Amino acid sequence: MTTIANQQYAIGVDIGGTSTKSGIVNHRGEIVSYGAAVVTGKFATPEAFVDELYTALAPAIQQVGLETIKGIGVGAPNGNYYTGTVDYAPNLPWRSVVPFARLVSEKFGCPCALTNDANATALGEMMYGVATGMKDFITITLGTGVGSGIVANGHVLYGHDGFAGELGHTIIRPGGRKHWATNLCGSLEAYCSATGIVLTAKEFLSQRSDESVLRHYNLDELTSKQVYEAAVKGDALAQEVYRYTGQILGEALANFVMFSSPEAIVLFGGVIKAGDLIMQPTKEHMEKNLLPIFQNKVKLVFSDLNEADAAILGASALVWEMKA
Amino acid sequence: MTTIANQQYAIGVDIGGTSTKSGIVNHRGEIVSYGAAVVTGKFATPEAFVDELYTALAPAIQQVGLETIKGIGVGAPNGNYYTGTVDYAPNLPWRSVVPFARLVSEKFGCPCALTNDANATALGEMMYGVATGMKDFITITLGTGVGSGIVANGHVLYGHDGFAGELGHTIIRPGGRKHWATNLCGSLEAYCSATGIVLTAKEFLSQRSDESVLRHYNLDELTSKQVYEAAVKGDALAQEVYRYTGQILGEALANFVMFSSPEAIVLFGGVIKAGDLIMQPTKEHMEKNLLPIFQNKVKLVFSDLNEADAAILGASALVWEMKA
Repeated sequence: MTTIANQQYAIGVDIGGTSTKSGIVNHRGEIVSYGAAVVTGKFATPEAFVDELYTALAPAIQQVGLETIKGIGVGAPNGNYYTGTVDYAPNLPWRSVVPFARLVSEKFGCPCALTNDANATALGEMMYGVATGMKDFITITLGTGVGSGIVANGHVLYGHDGFAGELGHTIIRPGGRKHWATNLCGSLEAYCSATGIVLTAKEFLSQRSDESVLRHYNLDELTSKQVYEAAVKGDALAQEVYRYTGQILGEALANFVMFSSPEAIVLFGGVIKAGDLIMQPTKEHMEKNLLPIFQNKVKLVFSDLNEADAAILGASALVWEMKA
Repeated sequence: MTTIANQQYAIGVDIGGTSTKSGIVNHRGEIVSYGAAVVTGKFATPEAFVDELYTALAPAIQQVGLETIKGIGVGAPNGNYYTGTVDYAPNLPWRSVVPFARLVSEKFGCPCALTNDANATALGEMMYGVATGMKDFITITLGTGVGSGIVANGHVLYGHDGFAGELGHTIIRPGGRKHWATNLCGSLEAYCSATGIVLTAKEFLSQRSDESVLRHYNLDELTSKQVYEAAVKGDALAQEVYRYTGQILGEALANFVMFSSPEAIVLFGGVIKAGDLIMQPTKEHMEKNLLPIFQNKVKLVFSDLNEADAAILGASALVWEMKA
């Protein structure tokens, strides 16, 4: 009983556009219990959402005792670490500056720190993942979009205003593909997200005439999973989609390496399920575009955290960084 | 007399490919006396070079008293802050790993810290220049090459191995102009250095047939100064060279902003003599390529440090950062 009483816990909350997940995490990065999932879009006000989040977590908190909770860490799209606010997040129902950290802290009665989801991922990798013990690394999340978290000298790089690390929006093909939401041309996200992979596949299918199993799908509903499965089965066009994606990603990573000289780059998210199909061309083109002083030094690795839990773990890691 | 005795000084040394300059600097960033210039290439061994540096500085040191010198800061191409070594610097006569900080410290009898010249420039701006008081900024030196120093959270970003901040070698035009030394294609330095500006002018002259005063020069000996002077006098082709250079620089800066979200970007070096010719297109294209959350926030400014002194000041700034 004494051991359990002395144990401290952190709550991790991952606010997603569809669903919000939470859990209670111990120092070893084990999720000892989960909160019930909350449907983010169902709540007209942030206050009502936070009330529901409290209800969802209450049984789990009761189990360990509120006094053992050191704090709550929240990862949210457009979350700002400096201000504790979520600012104009396009995929969340509340379209203004929401003081989430304050609302959560008041409702739960314990300290709350907040950052964006990509930075939370980086913290999770540093505390519990493949970047454990590293002081300089970058995480790149290749999902529906491309997110990034940068750790420099042992700390998440927040920049002047808390918005650093928007690497998905850096331009890697000037004058290239127009991004569906930002309207910027040639950004990393336009090519190397799951969305970008589907766009590349469609481009290849319309520009070329060679056979591909992808031609049997309704192109309006093509998914990156279908492109992946075709590539695994040896479809030449689908495989080339991954080589093209990996080339662009590799070139972008080379630029990032020459910026912050990280020990490792950790790839994360749905796209990495493609394994060597994406890793091999990415590594090849990263190395090709590096100055010799950087070559064959950067560890390019896949995250080994369970994707479902990683966001909760990452958010909870904010708590152990809190002062006092 | 008491005031003078209590005053502490830092020595700043700027090792350049041609000439090495040094000076004794007070806390206000005033160079109270200079060492004699040393011709870097004249010395077969680093030891002989350090001996000469000592001789060059001895009268100035005697003037203030060795006991008032807190330490020596050295800026050198390929200088590594972590190791205190200069590694395989292509423009210096010693082609290996030279333990400069140790050699200098032993010869002068006081502590020595070393970094690369671009990082020293950033430190100089932070302590004595337009970035005074800023915790997050980037300096870009547009000279024969393109150097950069990144300050994040109040500290120079060194990265895992001390080599961070090689922004001049990031690729901004994939598949573009081949760099004369690195062989990388489309790097920032290939376009936005003084060397790059001359190459752009030559390309424009050969691809186009419109009149330009630049056609009256021997193209093998064309200099960026001549391109600048032609642009100032209203030469349309020369002005377009600057618009082209500024566009590429602006696009690169947008990428850098989305990486580290700096408060300011400080431009430095010979190319900035072009003033608005380079500033205007750079700012325009930087803003155009930024996500809205970054727009109209970053101060894009020219350095106001005297170029001849800035390298010495920057190197000396390393001393005030030394522990104890």
